[in-house]
Amino acid sequence: MEVIRSNFKDNLSKVHEAVEEADFLAIDGEFSGISDGPSVSALTNGFDTPEERYQKLKKHSMDFLLFQFGLCTFKYDHTEEKYIMKSFNFYIFPKPFNRSSPDVKFVCQSSSIDFLANQGFDFNKVFRNGIPYLNQEEERQLREQYDEKRSQANGAGSLSYISPNATKCPVAIPEDQKKFIDKIVEQIDEFLKNEENDSLELEPCTGFQRKLIYQTLSWKYPKGIHVETLESDKKERYIVISKVDEEERKRREQQKQAKEQEELNDAVGFSRVVHAIANSGKLVIGHNMLLDVMHTIHQFYCPLPDDLSEFKEVTSCVFPRLLDTKLMASTQPFKDIINNTSLAELEKRLKEAPFSPPKVESAEGFPSYDTASEQLHEAGYDAYITGLCFISMANFLGSFLSPPKNYVSARSELIEPFFNKLFLMRVMDIPYLNLQGPDLQPKRDHVLHVTFPKEWKTSDLYQLFSAFGNIQVSWIDDTSAFVSLSQPEQVQIAVNTSRYAESYRIQTYAEYVEKKHEEKRAKRKCTEDSWKEMERKRLKTQGSPYLSQSRYYCVNSFTGTSIVGKRSMSPIQEETGSDNLEEEEVPEYDQTNSYAESPPDVKKRAKRFKKIKKEQVSAGKSNVLAHNFLFCLELKFHGCGLFVFWMSQLFWTCMCVMH
Amino acid sequence: MEVIRSNFKDNLSKVHEAVEEADFLAIDGEFSGISDGPSVSALTNGFDTPEERYQKLKKHSMDFLLFQFGLCTFKYDHTEEKYIMKSFNFYIFPKPFNRSSPDVKFVCQSSSIDFLANQGFDFNKVFRNGIPYLNQEEERQLREQYDEKRSQANGAGSLSYISPNATKCPVAIPEDQKKFIDKIVEQIDEFLKNEENDSLELEPCTGFQRKLIYQTLSWKYPKGIHVETLESDKKERYIVISKVDEEERKRREQQKQAKEQEELNDAVGFSRVVHAIANSGKLVIGHNMLLDVMHTIHQFYCPLPDDLSEFKEVTSCVFPRLLDTKLMASTQPFKDIINNTSLAELEKRLKEAPFSPPKVESAEGFPSYDTASEQLHEAGYDAYITGLCFISMANFLGSFLSPPKNYVSARSELIEPFFNKLFLMRVMDIPYLNLQGPDLQPKRDHVLHVTFPKEWKTSDLYQLFSAFGNIQVSWIDDTSAFVSLSQPEQVQIAVNTSRYAESYRIQTYAEYVEKKHEEKRAKRKCTEDSWKEMERKRLKTQGSPYLSQSRYYCVNSFTGTSIVGKRSMSPIQEETGSDNLEEEEVPEYDQTNSYAESPPDVKKRAKRFKKIKKEQVSAGKSNVLAHNFLFCLELKFHGCGLFVFWMSQLFWTCMCVMH
Repeated sequence: MEVIRSNFKDNLSKVHEAVEEADFLAIDGEFSGISDGPSVSALTNGFDTPEERYQKLKKHSMDFLLFQFGLCTFKYDHTEEKYIMKSFNFYIFPKPFNRSSPDVKFVCQSSSIDFLANQGFDFNKVFRNGIPYLNQEEERQLREQYDEKRSQANGAGSLSYISPNATKCPVAIPEDQKKFIDKIVEQIDEFLKNEENDSLELEPCTGFQRKLIYQTLSWKYPKGIHVETLESDKKERYIVISKVDEEERKRREQQKQAKEQEELNDAVGFSRVVHAIANSGKLVIGHNMLLDVMHTIHQFYCPLPDDLSEFKEVTSCVFPRLLDTKLMASTQPFKDIINNTSLAELEKRLKEAPFSPPKVESAEGFPSYDTASEQLHEAGYDAYITGLCFISMANFLGSFLSPPKNYVSARSELIEPFFNKLFLMRVMDIPYLNLQGPDLQPKRDHVLHVTFPKEWKTSDLYQLFSAFGNIQVSWIDDTSAFVSLSQPEQVQIAVNTSRYAESYRIQTYAEYVEKKHEEKRAKRKCTEDSWKEMERKRLKTQGSPYLSQSRYYCVNSFTGTSIVGKRSMSPIQEETGSDNLEEEEVPEYDQTNSYAESPPDVKKRAKRFKKIKKEQVSAGKSNVLAHNFLFCLELKFHGCGLFVFWMSQLFWTCMCVMH
Repeated sequence: MEVIRSNFKDNLSKVHEAVEEADFLAIDGEFSGISDGPSVSALTNGFDTPEERYQKLKKHSMDFLLFQFGLCTFKYDHTEEKYIMKSFNFYIFPKPFNRSSPDVKFVCQSSSIDFLANQGFDFNKVFRNGIPYLNQEEERQLREQYDEKRSQANGAGSLSYISPNATKCPVAIPEDQKKFIDKIVEQIDEFLKNEENDSLELEPCTGFQRKLIYQTLSWKYPKGIHVETLESDKKERYIVISKVDEEERKRREQQKQAKEQEELNDAVGFSRVVHAIANSGKLVIGHNMLLDVMHTIHQFYCPLPDDLSEFKEVTSCVFPRLLDTKLMASTQPFKDIINNTSLAELEKRLKEAPFSPPKVESAEGFPSYDTASEQLHEAGYDAYITGLCFISMANFLGSFLSPPKNYVSARSELIEPFFNKLFLMRVMDIPYLNLQGPDLQPKRDHVLHVTFPKEWKTSDLYQLFSAFGNIQVSWIDDTSAFVSLSQPEQVQIAVNTSRYAESYRIQTYAEYVEKKHEEKRAKRKCTEDSWKEMERKRLKTQGSPYLSQSRYYCVNSFTGTSIVGKRSMSPIQEETGSDNLEEEEVPEYDQTNSYAESPPDVKKRAKRFKKIKKEQVSAGKSNVLAHNFLFCLELKFHGCGLFVFWMSQLFWTCMCVMH
C-alpha cells in the first residue's frame, strides 16, 4: 500500500493494527545518498573498528534524507499454515508546516539519485506528496509553542517572555504605549456595557502592542471575554474580543485545543509510525540494516549520539529486537550454502533446496508483490523480500530439530543468537556490530598502516610489498591504507625496512591505534577547554542559552546512563584481550523476559537497559554460562549440523584468533 | 522549448543559432534552495555591505543545485517592428558519466522544494533526464585523463605515472614479474611470426601487470601492433593485441579520438550553452539576478573566488554585459511609477500606460508562452517575461528623446547606465552591486549595532529604543541586529546610556566595522600561518600536491590580475570617502568599443578587463568626466524627464549623502 501525505491520516489506524497483530516486521529505507565525503570504499574500510565505522557513517551519511520507508508486517496463520503480509510504502518529505517550523536542509548525492532514477523512483511523489515528520525534540518544541500561545491567550500561566526591563507585573506598559492601551480599555468597557454587539474587532497593530493588549485584558477582565488574534486579507493581524460565558469560553478553548492537537499530530506525521514500531517491541528485520537503523533514529528520534556505546543504548530503546538478514545469511549454518548475500540474490537462493519458499499471502485489501517481476529498491518491496528471506532461513533452522519442524516462529529461541547484531559491510574480521555488548576485537598483528604520496595507486603498494607474498590493501584515504600481510612475523621486517624511506611510512596496526587514541584524548581536552570558555561567556552575558539547553534535553533523554554504559560495554576500556569475546557471544537471556511486557516508552527503556547491563556485570560469567547450558539441553542435539549452527557465534571469534 | 538530456545534442545547434542572431538574451535559474544557514531575512540584512552580501551568498547559497535554466533570446525584426523570441527551458542534473567522474553532492532546502512542488515543478524530469555539465577544471581533468590514456595506449608520450622506485626506463620489471612478462613477450613474438591470426587475446591479469605489458610492448614493438584493454562479461580486464599497418593504426586512433571527443562534449553538456552565451558577448538580462549569476559561474565555470573584487573580474569575463530588470525598475525614471518590482507584478504593470506592451512573437517551431496563464517559476517562462519587462522599459526611455522613439535597441546608449549593476535585495542604502568598479559606501552614522540575549524579539528592541522615536531593525542573527535611528545625533546618546547595561551591548556602526576588520586581519594571519605549516609538511613528504596545484590552475585562469584589481577597485582600500562615488557612477565608455569585437575566450577577457581597469586608473577623473559630457550632448535634452533619467545614477548617491 502506497502511503503519501494525502492518505496518511486515513491509513494510520491500518498501520497501527498491522504492527500490533504482527509476529514480526520488516523494514527498509531509501536515501538521497550514501556518503558526502569519502568514496564508499574508503567509507567502508576493511579494517574499520565498529566505533570507527559508526563515526564515519554518522559524519558522512546522516545529512541525506530517508525519503522512502518500507514497512512489511508478517502474521502467521496457524490454521492455514501461511503468513499474512501487509506492506506499506511510505513517501517522506520534511514539508515545513508553518513559518516557524524547521526548514530542513538535506543533501543529495548524484550517483544515488541517478541510481534511483534508473529504477523508476518517483521523486515527484516524494517532494509533492511526502509525509512530514518531527523528531522528539522538535515535537516537544512545537508542543511548547502551542502551550505558550494558549497560556498567553488564556492569561492562565505566566508569560515566558523575557525582556530587558521585564517585571513580574503583567501590566508594565511603556510610557509611549499608555495612551494606546488606555484607549483600548475604554473601547472594551463600552463594548461590555453595550448589549448590541457580541464581538469587537480592534484595529490592526504591532505584535508588541498585541502583547500588551493580551496582558492588560487578562489582568483586567479575567472572565467573561474571549480574546483571539486573526489575520486580515491584507495579512494584517488584529485582535477580536467576544463576550462569552464561562461555559462557552471553555467550549471554545477545548475546540481550539483539539484543533491544535490535530495540527501537532499532522506535523509529527511519519514519526508516529516509527513510534508505533518502537512501542510494539516487535522483532524488526532488515537487510544490511545499519544505515536504515541510524537514519531512522536520526530523522525521527534525535540526532545520533557522539559515541557508539550511546548509540547502542538509544537503539535498544527504539528497536529492542533487531535482526539483520545479511548477517544471518553470512553466518553458519547458512554461510556455506549461500554464496551471494545481496538481497536480490539471497531471495532467489532461498527459493531453492535445501530451503523452501515460504507461504506468504497479502492481507485482504493490500496489494501483493510479485517476486518474479522484481521491484527492487522500492522500500516496500525490499522490506517484503527481506521478510521472505527471514522466514526461509528461520524455517530452515527447524530442520535441525528432532523431530524437524517446518515452521519456526519469530519468537523461537533458535533465532535468538542472531538478535541485535548488525552486519558490518566489508569489514574483514568483524562480521557485525553488537548492539548488546562490547564488540569483537580481533588481533590485527598482520596489519600495517601505510602513508604515501597522493599519486600512489594500489599497484604501487603491491610493488612496495612484492617481497612479502600475497597482501590485501584497504584504502583509508588518498594518502593512506591498511596493508595486511599473510604472515604476522613479517610485519616487523616491513616496518624496519621502511625506516629510512622518504616518500612513504609504515607502522604496525597497534602503533596506529595508539596514535589515534592519543589524538582523540588531545582533541577531547581541546573541546572541553572550549566548552569551558563558552560556559564562561554564557555566564558573563547572563542570557540563558536556549540552544544548549535543548541539546541537553535531547542527550539526557537517552544518555543519562552513558557512564555506566561505557564501563560495562566499551571493549577498549576493558582490554581483557580476546577471551572476553567468547563470553560476549552467548545469547543474553535476561532479555527474553521482556517478551510479555507491555512496551514502555523510550525513556523507560533506557532505564531498563541500564538495569540489565548492571545485572549482567554483577551476575558475571558463571551465570551467563548456566543460561548457555540450559539452552543447549533444550535444543536436543540433532547431529553435527545443529552443533555447527549453535557454534556459529563462536565461528568468527575462532577465525579472528586463528588469523 | 524543453531541453532535456535525451534531446540536448540534437538541439544544441538551435541554441547556438538563437544566441548568435539575438539582440539580447534573458536568463533565469531555479535552485534547490536559497540558504543553508541563516534565515533569508538574516541572509539579506538591510545593512550588508556588497562584500558581506557576496560572502554570505557564497557561503550559504552555493551548495544548492541550479537545476533549471531558462534562456530566452530576442531578435528585433525591423521590417515587422516586432521581436522574435526563442525560449529554451533546460533541465540540469550532474549525472555522473563514468566511475571516475565527480559524484556531485548538492543540498535541498525543504521550503524551496515545497514551493516549487506547489508550482508543479517536475522533479522527475530533473533527476531522470537532466543534462549533465562540467566546470572548466573538471573538463580539463577529464581531457587530461583521455590524453593520458591515449599516450599510454600509444606508447607515444611518457607515462605520467610516479611510483616509489620509478625510473625513466620504461622496462623496470620487478623481479617477481619478470617471468610473467617474458612469457607474454614470447607469446607475442610467436603471434607476430605466425600469419594465421590477426589478433591475440592475453589472459586477464592485474592492473599492475597490464601496465608492465603496455610499457614493455611500447618499447619492444614501437610499430606494427595495436594494443588495447577490453573487459570480459565477467568484468575481467584483458589485453588484446592486433597486427596493424601504420595506416590502420592511425585510422583506429582517429576513430577512438573522435569517440572520446564526443564523450567529452557530452560530459561538458550544459556548460556548452553557458560558454555560448559568454562567448557571444551579448547583453544578458535577468530579474534580481545576483544569485543566478553566482550559481551559473559556480556551477559551470569555477568555484566562486574568495573576494568580491575577484568575483567581479570573473563575472566580467563570463558575462561582459549584464542588466538587472529589478534594479532598472527600482531606478528613475521608473522608480516613481512602479510600486511593486516583483517579476509578476512588474510584467503586469508594464502592460499599462505610460508603458506599452511589447510586440513579441515566438519564432517558427518554438512554442509560445501565454502571459495570461502564468507559468511563473518555470525558468524559461521567467526568462521570457524578464525580456518583456526589459523591452517595455527600454522603449519607455525612447519617449524622452526628441523626437520620441517607440523602439530602443539593446545596443542603445540610453540603457547603458543600467549595465553591470546587480540589484541588492533588501539593502536599505546600497541599491546595487557594481560589477564595473568600487561599490557605494553610504555613511551609516545613524546606525547602531546591538547584541542581546537569544530570547529577544523585535518588540524588545522597540521597547529598548522607545525614547528615540522611529527606529528600523535589521536582524543579523539570533543575538544581534542593526538598529537605525532617525537622527544621527542620537547615536552617541544611545551608546552612552547602554554603557552599564548587562544583558545587551550597543556600538556605533563604525565601531562594529572596525572590529570586524580587525578580526578579519587576525583570521587572515592565522590562515597564512596554517598554510605555511601545510607547505612545510608538503615539502617534508616530497609528494607533489595535486589538489593544491589544481586550485592554482582555477584561480589563475581568472585572478592573475587580482592585485591590480584590488588596488583599483576596492573601496575599503581607497577609503576616499563618498566623493569617489560620483566618479564611479559615470558609464564606462571604454567598454563600448568591444561591441564590434569578436568575443574572446574567458582568459583573454580577463586580460582586457585588467587593461581597462589600468586605463581607468591612469586616465583619472577628468577623462571620465569628458566622456560624461559628450554623452549629455548626444542625448539632446528633452525637458526635465530625460534629465531625471540620466541623473538616475546619481540619485542613490545623493540619497546616501543626504541621509
